[in-house]
Amino acid sequence: MNVSTWAVRKEDRLARFMRIRRQTLALCAGLSAEDLMVQSMPDASPGKWHLAHPTWFFEQFVLGRDPAYRAPNPEWHYQFNSYYESVGPMHARPKRGLLSRPSLDEVRDYRARIDEAVGELMERGVDDELAARIELGLQHEQQHQELMLTDIKHAFWCQPLHPVYREALPAESSAASLLMHFMQGREGVVEIGHDDSQRFAYDNETPRHHTWLSAHALAHRLVTNSEYLAFVRDGGYHDAGLWLSDGWATVQREGWQRPMYWQEDLASEFTLSGICALDPQAPVCHISYFEADAFARWAGARLPTEAEWEDAARGLQIAGNFQESQRFHPVAAPRGEGMLQMYGDVWEWTASPYVSYPGFKPLPGALGEYNGKFMNGQWVLRGGSCATPQDHIRASYRNFFPPHARWQFSGIRLGQDR
Amino acid sequence: MNVSTWAVRKEDRLARFMRIRRQTLALCAGLSAEDLMVQSMPDASPGKWHLAHPTWFFEQFVLGRDPAYRAPNPEWHYQFNSYYESVGPMHARPKRGLLSRPSLDEVRDYRARIDEAVGELMERGVDDELAARIELGLQHEQQHQELMLTDIKHAFWCQPLHPVYREALPAESSAASLLMHFMQGREGVVEIGHDDSQRFAYDNETPRHHTWLSAHALAHRLVTNSEYLAFVRDGGYHDAGLWLSDGWATVQREGWQRPMYWQEDLASEFTLSGICALDPQAPVCHISYFEADAFARWAGARLPTEAEWEDAARGLQIAGNFQESQRFHPVAAPRGEGMLQMYGDVWEWTASPYVSYPGFKPLPGALGEYNGKFMNGQWVLRGGSCATPQDHIRASYRNFFPPHARWQFSGIRLGQDR
Amino acid sequence: MNVSTWAVRKEDRLARFMRIRRQTLALCAGLSAEDLMVQSMPDASPGKWHLAHPTWFFEQFVLGRDPAYRAPNPEWHYQFNSYYESVGPMHARPKRGLLSRPSLDEVRDYRARIDEAVGELMERGVDDELAARIELGLQHEQQHQELMLTDIKHAFWCQPLHPVYREALPAESSAASLLMHFMQGREGVVEIGHDDSQRFAYDNETPRHHTWLSAHALAHRLVTNSEYLAFVRDGGYHDAGLWLSDGWATVQREGWQRPMYWQEDLASEFTLSGICALDPQAPVCHISYFEADAFARWAGARLPTEAEWEDAARGLQIAGNFQESQRFHPVAAPRGEGMLQMYGDVWEWTASPYVSYPGFKPLPGALGEYNGKFMNGQWVLRGGSCATPQDHIRASYRNFFPPHARWQFSGIRLGQDR
Amino acid sequence: MNVSTWAVRKEDRLARFMRIRRQTLALCAGLSAEDLMVQSMPDASPGKWHLAHPTWFFEQFVLGRDPAYRAPNPEWHYQFNSYYESVGPMHARPKRGLLSRPSLDEVRDYRARIDEAVGELMERGVDDELAARIELGLQHEQQHQELMLTDIKHAFWCQPLHPVYREALPAESSAASLLMHFMQGREGVVEIGHDDSQRFAYDNETPRHHTWLSAHALAHRLVTNSEYLAFVRDGGYHDAGLWLSDGWATVQREGWQRPMYWQEDLASEFTLSGICALDPQAPVCHISYFEADAFARWAGARLPTEAEWEDAARGLQIAGNFQESQRFHPVAAPRGEGMLQMYGDVWEWTASPYVSYPGFKPLPGALGEYNGKFMNGQWVLRGGSCATPQDHIRASYRNFFPPHARWQFSGIRLGQDR
Repeated sequence: MNVSTWAVRKEDRLARFMRIRRQTLALCAGLSAEDLMVQSMPDASPGKWHLAHPTWFFEQFVLGRDPAYRAPNPEWHYQFNSYYESVGPMHARPKRGLLSRPSLDEVRDYRARIDEAVGELMERGVDDELAARIELGLQHEQQHQELMLTDIKHAFWCQPLHPVYREALPAESSAASLLMHFMQGREGVVEIGHDDSQRFAYDNETPRHHTWLSAHALAHRLVTNSEYLAFVRDGGYHDAGLWLSDGWATVQREGWQRPMYWQEDLASEFTLSGICALDPQAPVCHISYFEADAFARWAGARLPTEAEWEDAARGLQIAGNFQESQRFHPVAAPRGEGMLQMYGDVWEWTASPYVSYPGFKPLPGALGEYNGKFMNGQWVLRGGSCATPQDHIRASYRNFFPPHARWQFSGIRLGQDR
Repeated sequence: MNVSTWAVRKEDRLARFMRIRRQTLALCAGLSAEDLMVQSMPDASPGKWHLAHPTWFFEQFVLGRDPAYRAPNPEWHYQFNSYYESVGPMHARPKRGLLSRPSLDEVRDYRARIDEAVGELMERGVDDELAARIELGLQHEQQHQELMLTDIKHAFWCQPLHPVYREALPAESSAASLLMHFMQGREGVVEIGHDDSQRFAYDNETPRHHTWLSAHALAHRLVTNSEYLAFVRDGGYHDAGLWLSDGWATVQREGWQRPMYWQEDLASEFTLSGICALDPQAPVCHISYFEADAFARWAGARLPTEAEWEDAARGLQIAGNFQESQRFHPVAAPRGEGMLQMYGDVWEWTASPYVSYPGFKPLPGALGEYNGKFMNGQWVLRGGSCATPQDHIRASYRNFFPPHARWQFSGIRLGQDR
Repeated sequence: MNVSTWAVRKEDRLARFMRIRRQTLALCAGLSAEDLMVQSMPDASPGKWHLAHPTWFFEQFVLGRDPAYRAPNPEWHYQFNSYYESVGPMHARPKRGLLSRPSLDEVRDYRARIDEAVGELMERGVDDELAARIELGLQHEQQHQELMLTDIKHAFWCQPLHPVYREALPAESSAASLLMHFMQGREGVVEIGHDDSQRFAYDNETPRHHTWLSAHALAHRLVTNSEYLAFVRDGGYHDAGLWLSDGWATVQREGWQRPMYWQEDLASEFTLSGICALDPQAPVCHISYFEADAFARWAGARLPTEAEWEDAARGLQIAGNFQESQRFHPVAAPRGEGMLQMYGDVWEWTASPYVSYPGFKPLPGALGEYNGKFMNGQWVLRGGSCATPQDHIRASYRNFFPPHARWQFSGIRLGQDR
Repeated sequence: MNVSTWAVRKEDRLARFMRIRRQTLALCAGLSAEDLMVQSMPDASPGKWHLAHPTWFFEQFVLGRDPAYRAPNPEWHYQFNSYYESVGPMHARPKRGLLSRPSLDEVRDYRARIDEAVGELMERGVDDELAARIELGLQHEQQHQELMLTDIKHAFWCQPLHPVYREALPAESSAASLLMHFMQGREGVVEIGHDDSQRFAYDNETPRHHTWLSAHALAHRLVTNSEYLAFVRDGGYHDAGLWLSDGWATVQREGWQRPMYWQEDLASEFTLSGICALDPQAPVCHISYFEADAFARWAGARLPTEAEWEDAARGLQIAGNFQESQRFHPVAAPRGEGMLQMYGDVWEWTASPYVSYPGFKPLPGALGEYNGKFMNGQWVLRGGSCATPQDHIRASYRNFFPPHARWQFSGIRLGQDR
């Protein structure tokens, strides 16, 4: 992890550390200790755990590098380790919702103590390796910010009272419907993967490498609720021929009839601001890979590959509807030229299984468990969402989820062979 | 439910109502909102739910009898109904741990409002039917007091930090070992079932009826930890011949090796006061029916029937180690004559499946769902435990749990054919 | 097992042995090796296994008593042991359908060899213990005859081609509808349990003992298809209030809408003679305990206890529609006085959980695993069915199945408190 | 499916049809109707089903093209359809083992009738489309030949008696150990996919397309039993760090300790010739993707991508240990130059998830369900095995199985980045 150059930023490193750590707490405003206890399914975690685990990460991988370091609460490590087998055994993931102890107040204190310790370390000065680990910890923290939002959304949806997380912002004047068109992509050998040694990237975005793009085109904007509704009304959930075999089995077993948070009336949906009317021009959201793939087939199209997506994103400005907008929900595409909504709003499912790039080397030691060991049975998503911090995303960023996962802010961009 | 006579008590009815309701809250002292959120298994419920559900019960069955009654939070009823199908649909039992809303504070307010409303009603005067329903509600509340204790014990045991609920009281000087002996019971036709129309009983304790007792004897005290340890050390958990077929399957599937809360060292156990040394003279506890039955077979004895137990309890004073002792753990038998430990310490598994008495009539309406519909696949337990309020138990009281249940304070008294 | 007196029979013992063993094979006429391979659910066994296992039983418990005995195929014992843990480990029950080896022909040879060996033994003369074991083996064989019929029925029902086992016999002129009436039973102390030391009984029918019967009456005939149809049409399967809690959960989980083999038209049913019109006067069949109990509640009645049933059966002739009729299906009650259809047609669910009688002693050794270890979670059925050999049944006979079991020929007789 | 050119072969089409169809039956020699009934797990099918289903395929897709065609047994189609949703509903896959009807004899007759009908059709002359469908049916038949062998192996392994399918052939003089070496592959743009319009290929092998190969090398032979044994002995199954996360979960859940058919002694294995000594020089076999991937990581290598494999196979002669050798088991690599064992012996797991090639078009209509709908959660295998007919395999052939599948003849070739 040669990240000596990460130090070269406009923002002061320590300020950045404190800003990101504070933002996590800011996202908890209005949530009670009880709200932050709920684990609504094995894939989700309680908010309190999202506060504690990245803190443990800093303790384990930053502070713990100093052999003289003494953890204030070593007995907590077992329950705040997520999946680092080489660090030690851990509490079973589906049972994180049972952890009433330590309390939320104790976890807040824990955060403060670790922040202070890391802050002191940074003020004393850190070597490149430590700087890199701190940066990794911050990126990791930001991932958990997004997960905290998607998990609390699911937790509130599972409750009969359907609580509101944040009051809805005033609606922007809804864009008139924009006809979708396809923009030609490059054919031939291209390079993808992380290319800027000045900036952070996860190991799974490296090494930069050649790949061949076939002739293709990508839709200039995301698929909207009204387009997806047409699929639903056309019987999309009842036509086996549109689905992958595993997808069809999931539709049958789970009784899927519409996107996850859509209400039965097909006119409203559950959001972090409660149940709201469905905006026909907004991107469809909380779609699994199976649904994205079936919709694309129904539409006579396909999903983009991750290389096609990344090549199309080359040179685009990273702007859009991110966590910072405080909307926590996708919005209609703005008027504009070129590829729209490539960043923000919703993660875009690609037709690429999540596997290693040629020549991939995981980080050494326990940090090597961060990404590489999940390279089975998942599909890549690109572009970030309305729950992603803007400075967390980049063209080479590879998110990944299993094909049935629906609780992330995930949607659809179409692609075509040419 | 002819309970006009229940009004005739020394204790003033309203004071009794307030005392029992307050006691439930008193049991929560020292537990946080987070502690009261945990649902550690589908059979258990969060503490907050135990606070809310009996309150709903008063609202539904007492206040709701007045057609003019307006519930302050009708939208809560769905999630605080337990299993009364005729009242309406309900939140799935295994998902009670997801309910962060209403908050603990709101639930406390809810309790206060309903207490006030019931209090006013009582002051205005209640008819017999209403008096009976209030009494049923209080008995129901007491049951949930006990469940709250057993559920929080399980919740704390499931957490890696093993919190302490209450500091242990100073140990009483442990009794010297008392040799177990058997006391002859009556043979012939006896009457069992509730017999005192002046006092409350559940419908399942009625009607009083004849039954035949074969020649038999019952042990004068409960089986102790040291006696059970001998069974463990003798390979009891590895000898299929000692177990019911379903019990053996459970032992294999669950990997049972010892009582639920015993530690691997066979010398200590988890209690509501944390991990403590095992008292050899104290009654063995947290035993399933399968284990009680296997132990009895190993010991060349059997479990008592519920009729044998009830006949033996006839005339005994209701005294022992109850909730009021604040020990929340069974203790060694006192020195004494006659049948010891019949009440309190641990519920005693009987050899009687939980079925209706001849001529049984459930309560009319939704209250009829209280007991009768559970008469399948469960076994009767008698005598109350260290978590039972003393004024809740009586000779005819029938508790019931499925044969694999271990998280109640349940233990063993032996019986014999003569 | 003092059965010396069993020798005193009109029928010669050896002839009886050969007759019963031959009858098992006769029931396989028309079934192919493939038909006899099918295991359609874990509770059922393949026909070939029903041929082999009782043969193993004779080998294990009769021939094996001679220390000099050498099994022809000791390597088969593992797979033909059912549940005798003390004899040795065994093949997993749900995987009996995988056993293509030994072949059906080899199993037939096995039967012939063991029959010859037992025959020789009997000709040389057997002591009381051995005579008793042979008799137990024959009773056991007869139980497997019945299971073979119910299991092949289920196996054929699971196949899309719905094969016919035996062509239907010409219908008897269907009886005109007989109004059900209730006949008063005895109140007071009675004796039940096996009482004839001259005749065989299982250990679970002993000892004969006193019990108290409350005032009651029993229906003079079984509940018919047309009566049960009224329950279905009245929404019986949609009214939670009629069901035990576990029963309602089963109805919901399994999607029960009608008796097991009834067709969706509610006018025909699958039988061992294929799909036939439902005879309105014939007893309803393939009913679980949950359904029998719900029906009784709907009808304002209850199920009989096993003691009530046995007392009513006292003195009745054992006659009815048994295996020997070759109908393999229940038929309408004949005209007649007194209690009708007490024997044959369908097993009658009772309100009695299957537990031991006071003073029960299982058989010594491995044979003690025959009955006692199943005394949990099951309900007693009485009277035998159209699949039971006539000489297998008696007033004290206790059959038992779990409350959800439907694939046996099981039906309903109503009882009442008086 | 433009396959007009497939007609141009040396072998007469009709003779080829008959030869392949007869070979399927030849593989059943020595198997009884009972053996051919066993379904030992949901992923496997009974041999009888493997005989019937490809026959149905000819009926459905070849004979059924003639509107005048009348199926002799239309009622069988439901149970012999595998997964063609657009053709109609089908019998549940995990319940194929329940189908005692039609009998094996009836299925053999069915095969004969359909063979005769197809033969007559071919003699009258078939158009290109029909010729292509017949060829597809034959390729499909060959796939089921291989599955029949792997399924019967599993079925026999599940039986306590471990039957022998075929007596082992005399061992060839075992090769001396050949040190594994790596051979450099090409770097740059290559073409892969089916390239010979004269010969059959599945739709998933098309279109031929460009792809980029990174610098790499492939092992010149397969991984042997002795090499895999070193991994086992080194604690490979106990080191989480070697495994994908899903793989480690599988190891834990399933208790994997060694390859599927290896005995506990690590010195013998179950084969189609019964339990045999493990040949140290023979390729390790019955390895899941998870195990192949973990072994490669342990060895400091990786698995080849399917493009690397296909490029390496370019120009190699298709020769090796196939079904025709009648060994039904992999053998040690022969001495020789260049890449060894690329064809036959064992399928080679690749590092490539099974997804569509750029520009992929499934076959039209129901035949489009053949391949495309399975493109999720599976990995590509290449090269064929000892159970594959030699004329069935080619360089572009893509087999695919989920990562936990072990019952195929699947093994490991290593690759490296260069």
